[in-house]
Amino acid sequence: MRVMIWGGDGYLGWPTAMYLARAGHEVVAVDSYLKRDLVCATGAEPLVPVPPLAERARLFRAAGDAEIRVEITDLREPEAAHRLLREYQPEAVVHYAEQPSAPYSMRGEDEARLTLLNNLGVTFNLIQAVLHHAPDCAIVKLGTMGEYGTPNIAIEEGWLTVTHEGRSETFLYPRQASSLYHTTKILDTDLLWFYVRSAGLRVTDLMQGPVYGFDAGVSDDARLLTAFHYDELFGTVLNRFLVQALAGHPLTVYGRGEQRRGYLDLRDTLACVSLALAHPPPRGEMRIYNQFTEIFSVNELAARVISAARTLRMEATVAHEPNPRFEAEEHFYEVRHRALLELGLQPHLLTEEVLVGMLERLRPHAARVRPELFRPRVRWGRPRS
Amino acid sequence: MRVMIWGGDGYLGWPTAMYLARAGHEVVAVDSYLKRDLVCATGAEPLVPVPPLAERARLFRAAGDAEIRVEITDLREPEAAHRLLREYQPEAVVHYAEQPSAPYSMRGEDEARLTLLNNLGVTFNLIQAVLHHAPDCAIVKLGTMGEYGTPNIAIEEGWLTVTHEGRSETFLYPRQASSLYHTTKILDTDLLWFYVRSAGLRVTDLMQGPVYGFDAGVSDDARLLTAFHYDELFGTVLNRFLVQALAGHPLTVYGRGEQRRGYLDLRDTLACVSLALAHPPPRGEMRIYNQFTEIFSVNELAARVISAARTLRMEATVAHEPNPRFEAEEHFYEVRHRALLELGLQPHLLTEEVLVGMLERLRPHAARVRPELFRPRVRWGRPRS
Repeated sequence: MRVMIWGGDGYLGWPTAMYLARAGHEVVAVDSYLKRDLVCATGAEPLVPVPPLAERARLFRAAGDAEIRVEITDLREPEAAHRLLREYQPEAVVHYAEQPSAPYSMRGEDEARLTLLNNLGVTFNLIQAVLHHAPDCAIVKLGTMGEYGTPNIAIEEGWLTVTHEGRSETFLYPRQASSLYHTTKILDTDLLWFYVRSAGLRVTDLMQGPVYGFDAGVSDDARLLTAFHYDELFGTVLNRFLVQALAGHPLTVYGRGEQRRGYLDLRDTLACVSLALAHPPPRGEMRIYNQFTEIFSVNELAARVISAARTLRMEATVAHEPNPRFEAEEHFYEVRHRALLELGLQPHLLTEEVLVGMLERLRPHAARVRPELFRPRVRWGRPRS
Repeated sequence: MRVMIWGGDGYLGWPTAMYLARAGHEVVAVDSYLKRDLVCATGAEPLVPVPPLAERARLFRAAGDAEIRVEITDLREPEAAHRLLREYQPEAVVHYAEQPSAPYSMRGEDEARLTLLNNLGVTFNLIQAVLHHAPDCAIVKLGTMGEYGTPNIAIEEGWLTVTHEGRSETFLYPRQASSLYHTTKILDTDLLWFYVRSAGLRVTDLMQGPVYGFDAGVSDDARLLTAFHYDELFGTVLNRFLVQALAGHPLTVYGRGEQRRGYLDLRDTLACVSLALAHPPPRGEMRIYNQFTEIFSVNELAARVISAARTLRMEATVAHEPNPRFEAEEHFYEVRHRALLELGLQPHLLTEEVLVGMLERLRPHAARVRPELFRPRVRWGRPRS
């Protein structure tokens, strides 16, 4: 299958490119380098330096793997989107090309505007380019479980059938998020759903939970590792905890730590995207899958990291930080996530063995850790009025 | 009250400015002239030529009324938004500054992009400028009943309480629209709702049905009439029917004509906005009102116009056009609209007398009607795949 990956340089994009190329697909990895720019501007370097995308593709090929074609172009430009779809005529596009950080989106007005205009603008450009040049092309879009927020009823898989005064209707599950970043993902879903219905687009929207993992399981070459972040902006919570444990720094739990979310292993993200590509909807249909494997509270994650660290004779502790975020710290959380399992997903669960393995893989890089990146500086808890 | 009207040059904006100034408010009317530009570009001139906004404000003042301050500036520019809120420190902003045409938004890719980026961008700029310079300022935002679409259950007023597996939650009523324009209004609602919750904004979101009317009832000076459109792009259905009847042209009903919507008189829009201004929510609360007075099918509207025309000895007929739109032509439609009535709205209903009055007011301008503007050229019915 000819697959184009938008955002092919990112934490998920690059491993996806390798994984799909290894699986025999023709892969084109496209990126604006937006996240590299933001990483430079904020000083939030990844744990291990990441070669340019073309260099990574060259190394992958040199090691005997398939070619990954690379395009560095600004996907916010309509013409770039049109050219890509016209030239490559992909059968599917995996769309990761979004500003991916909730705290970054809440850092200030400029960062919020960039997040809004980039995420909506790129999604819109993709929709238009697909409709013009490759209307049968399937879109696999990375959404987020954060779109749903933490409602007081069970979170169904994308849709909710409501019975009201004896009549019933099935709606997009109502969404309300707790950062501007997550809100842009809601807007993406609304936009895609409109063009699915009105113009016959084929979309799979993956509501993904926070991902953890360092090694995608595709290559042993350290230069082909994904961009691994552990800072307050781009580091997801479990990755940050692992690096904090390595650095002998307390695990920074925000608030009471009873925030519950659905998590998954980086390797499972690759499998889920691959399953979505293998089961595209017909034209005019949107499929929505809740993409995670296990639910944990932040406190539970911290306890598991502490236990795994102890196995390696590292002494890890917890420090509760005032919660910088706007979120409920204790809440109901029951979430359906059957569809990907029914398609054949075989989860990598968060066992002690997995955690110990991640710590061991990260350990050689411990000297590069910059503990000053741990501290949350972006605060968007609800101000008192 | 110091009130700023964003989009103060438009069909609703200018009558609102006059109405609020007459009522004793300090009014600043702000406009980008975006719609004037689109009207020029598409050739869809209003029935009666409209003087520049500053000229209209001068005429209004010269006739003995209060001053309406005028600012022509591009609200898509963040700096413009900041300057306005900083300088005027309004107590409320009425936000009409959006590309308002569903067919225009579906005309092509450029028009769709303009609609998306203008509507989201201006709403975002307003939010940021209010938060920075006047966080207690109330926002009255014009949404649309079209955000809800035509679900198979009753449309409640903004919110829906869902009981699911024995638990319950109140959500924003789930929205799904049938044009990109209407979809941008959904995105606006999502965006405002995020900043209401996270930053304590005060918002009233008015879900308005199609408005009809020529005379806002504020001034008898023809130069102060609102910009009245009857073309396929900017003319709402009843206004178009009235002008078609005047021009001896068949009333163009799209499809079967059983599409039902909630309509209201232009004078009631002014009263509703005024009621919303008089009852602002506290910080951190969003109020949503369904703003219309009566529900009609398109066929019912056509029949009423034909009957009123007959009173004036004009012979009007109906011509069914293939529906250019993506919409259900027969559907369930039961909609709550209590809140504005409870605040004191006294509706002007669509009586034969009102229709005859509108036809009489329009008649002196009949020679200016350009029947070629009636024909729907923008088609976005779902393509067969």
